[in-house]
Amino acid sequence: MAKAIPSRSEDYSLWYNELVKKAGLAENSPVRGCMVIKPYGFAIWEKMQQTLDRMFKDTGHENAYFPLLIPKSFLSKEADHVEGFAKECAVVTHYRLKNDENGKGVVVDPEAKLEEELIIRPTSETVIWDSYKNWIQSYRDLPILVNQWANVMRWEMRTRLFLRTAEFLWQEGHTAHATKQEAVDETRQMLDVYATFAEEFMAMPVIKGVKTESERFAGAVDTYCIEAMMQDGKALQAGTSHFLGQNFAKAFDVKFATKEGKEELVWGTSWGVSTRLMGALIMAHSDDDGLVLPPKLAPIQVVIVPIYFKDEQLAQIEEVVAPIVAQLKEKGVSVKFDTRDTHKPGWKFAEYELKGVPVRLAIGPKDLEKGTVEIARRDTKEKSFHPIDGAVDHVMHLLKDIQVNIYNKAKELREENSKEANTYDEFKELVEQGFVYAHWDGTAETEDKIKEETKATIRCIPLDQKEEEGTCIFTGKPSKGRVLFAKAY
Amino acid sequence: MAKAIPSRSEDYSLWYNELVKKAGLAENSPVRGCMVIKPYGFAIWEKMQQTLDRMFKDTGHENAYFPLLIPKSFLSKEADHVEGFAKECAVVTHYRLKNDENGKGVVVDPEAKLEEELIIRPTSETVIWDSYKNWIQSYRDLPILVNQWANVMRWEMRTRLFLRTAEFLWQEGHTAHATKQEAVDETRQMLDVYATFAEEFMAMPVIKGVKTESERFAGAVDTYCIEAMMQDGKALQAGTSHFLGQNFAKAFDVKFATKEGKEELVWGTSWGVSTRLMGALIMAHSDDDGLVLPPKLAPIQVVIVPIYFKDEQLAQIEEVVAPIVAQLKEKGVSVKFDTRDTHKPGWKFAEYELKGVPVRLAIGPKDLEKGTVEIARRDTKEKSFHPIDGAVDHVMHLLKDIQVNIYNKAKELREENSKEANTYDEFKELVEQGFVYAHWDGTAETEDKIKEETKATIRCIPLDQKEEEGTCIFTGKPSKGRVLFAKAY
Ligand SMILES: [Zn+2]
Ligand SMILES: [Zn+2]
Repeated sequence: MAKAIPSRSEDYSLWYNELVKKAGLAENSPVRGCMVIKPYGFAIWEKMQQTLDRMFKDTGHENAYFPLLIPKSFLSKEADHVEGFAKECAVVTHYRLKNDENGKGVVVDPEAKLEEELIIRPTSETVIWDSYKNWIQSYRDLPILVNQWANVMRWEMRTRLFLRTAEFLWQEGHTAHATKQEAVDETRQMLDVYATFAEEFMAMPVIKGVKTESERFAGAVDTYCIEAMMQDGKALQAGTSHFLGQNFAKAFDVKFATKEGKEELVWGTSWGVSTRLMGALIMAHSDDDGLVLPPKLAPIQVVIVPIYFKDEQLAQIEEVVAPIVAQLKEKGVSVKFDTRDTHKPGWKFAEYELKGVPVRLAIGPKDLEKGTVEIARRDTKEKSFHPIDGAVDHVMHLLKDIQVNIYNKAKELREENSKEANTYDEFKELVEQGFVYAHWDGTAETEDKIKEETKATIRCIPLDQKEEEGTCIFTGKPSKGRVLFAKAY
Repeated sequence: MAKAIPSRSEDYSLWYNELVKKAGLAENSPVRGCMVIKPYGFAIWEKMQQTLDRMFKDTGHENAYFPLLIPKSFLSKEADHVEGFAKECAVVTHYRLKNDENGKGVVVDPEAKLEEELIIRPTSETVIWDSYKNWIQSYRDLPILVNQWANVMRWEMRTRLFLRTAEFLWQEGHTAHATKQEAVDETRQMLDVYATFAEEFMAMPVIKGVKTESERFAGAVDTYCIEAMMQDGKALQAGTSHFLGQNFAKAFDVKFATKEGKEELVWGTSWGVSTRLMGALIMAHSDDDGLVLPPKLAPIQVVIVPIYFKDEQLAQIEEVVAPIVAQLKEKGVSVKFDTRDTHKPGWKFAEYELKGVPVRLAIGPKDLEKGTVEIARRDTKEKSFHPIDGAVDHVMHLLKDIQVNIYNKAKELREENSKEANTYDEFKELVEQGFVYAHWDGTAETEDKIKEETKATIRCIPLDQKEEEGTCIFTGKPSKGRVLFAKAY
């Protein structure tokens, strides 16, 4: 069987693109920069969604839905926000088509021009704070803890499946609070939720930190983030949580009466993760044979492939497999018994490897004789024969082990490729391979110059930054601690 | 306490609008025709979504996601489809804003004009069949059983919250099959899924039928539908399932190799329900005091209101309530114990009535003495005192009973307001009050004229239509069976 995808060492970028397509995760659509998320890819996204949604609800949030379209004038209300988001957005100018008078299909009806253009949301702070103005009168109406699952659009010029697409799916939390402290706590809480999700479900270790001013969300006072390392040593921002201060409350005039009867501006946060996480998940663990999925997010956790030549053999295998399937299902494991006669076992093995199914069982006539089953794990490719008795327990154990193992592997990779640099020369060399912790003088100017020269950016000021006297690798000016530099997706 | 909403008999239409807003379900947004679905409304929609999603998966469907934007030329590929959907749609013509040279905020950048305009999807047949062309080569690739949960836009002129909005949320199933029979079976199966959902979960009886040619989906060979009666006797179409024949396969050139090696066009279906169901749910059951929700879709199924004057009393009540809450939760019941001291019990009673919580428990110092609890059901407003022992069982019983009772009530209303008309005079009178079964000559012309004169339309040709010789109420021409007429939402 021909190799389905190129190897990572050959061409990392092509490896990723081909893997996304061949594993049936997503493909490009006829609309530039917009993707089609295929059923298998969407099934993974659904698992992410369900997990995050439960975590949001467990922390007191409710879902709601706000309009797709935003009046153009709304964008201008918050000064930084418009700078950040007006540039590349899809603009609706008309609301009708008509038959072309020359018979050339349909054309835009010039008479159906909107008085004010509408923007497809690139993010929803403006339209949501416009609603909050009506929802909030007094302290009794606070906090508002709302999340929305939605599609958004940013007209990106260079796009890549999942990583950077014009349309993407995401969730955006938007909360309103009576005090600054409460809003800051919420911002940090949601960062922790994202970090927990990344580490415990995606099996992807992350660094928690705060963005520098130039990397901050347009309209935020502080942007917190989680940063993960991909297998090529580059960073991927896997989630952001913004402390908005009173910026949007000011822009949309959202005030509340305090318990003491004073009128004050409301404090806000927003936070989001997107289908970009799919890109992170794929790049964090997969190998040259295909996807490697953490069991907690795998749509199919266990696949069972029968090996048989005659129909009687399949019947015998089915008899042995049925109770295994039943027991696994009872334990909440999603299991597929692939009895299709249109494909050979070898083809199926390769297919499920490509699709990252964590555990594969194979059972043939010889196994029946011996009372064994072949159990293969996707992450290490180890195979072993196991007595059918106890196979279910063994599978349960493997699922847990794989979840832990791929997390450890990703963490090891990150540790091996995280270095401290003390000179700019050292920095330039190290930053080609991974994360670099280095001193920085705290100015946007230095940050810009380093970015220009090396393409590396400050991913974040880590929350667990150690206090340490040092000098900026670029300017030699004093610094109190190291920040995290890396090239990034 | 002032009455929250007008009564149905005063002004049915105003009653609906005010109920939607006051119960916190939805509100209008600053973008004409687009709504904000508020957390309580969204929580009901989520319950609907989850239930339907499970039913779709149980019938073998998978979710996927296709682009929001559709190239203008795609719409024109299916001749009927463009007639139906090109008229009122949101058109994206530009992809960038820029700062106005005269300092007046942001304006559309004329240099960022798209070569081909993009349409916000009014429905996704075109963009999906364009993908299916690449997904389908041989009979082995069939059937494709895909659903998508998405937002869509139709530029409606007169809008009403949930019932008719420019943007709405929905699911759209799109399936592809090797044979006509399989596609017809799928169309009918999904109609049955919708009917089951409407009756068993929404507690809303429906008539299954097929649309006449003039009411058919633009691009379908046959449109099946379910029709429900609202409390004002009007019909509401609660779901449609379309047999598309080979229309979209022809338009997008989607062919497959059969087992025998021949090349054939693929057969298709599509089917959908939307946030319109929220409107149906509200209008089917609610009364002058607010929402009446079927327990199976109520976000809060049981609310417990403590009645107390001193904090010690609340502590004593909490001791009694805690095991009730625990037992209800264990049985999967969503229960809220409302201990807020910012609102009086009377206010809470009215609030939960307005929000349609099916069962309310109230417990005060006197109940503690007697070992009783007051149990009130929302549908009939009946209240009774019940020993605390066994209260949980009683509540469980009530939840089941309410689900059945509101279904029966809705069915009774429909039966009382469904009549047969044998003359046009009789028809005109009866159709002001409800459903009318009458003979029709089968022509679009007659259908149109009746609509013009009475505003009533043929809702469907019922699937269980009896064969019966008769004459058209309008033209006197022969007819073989009665069709269902009604005024509709
Ligand atoms: Zn073992
Ligand atoms: Zn009882």
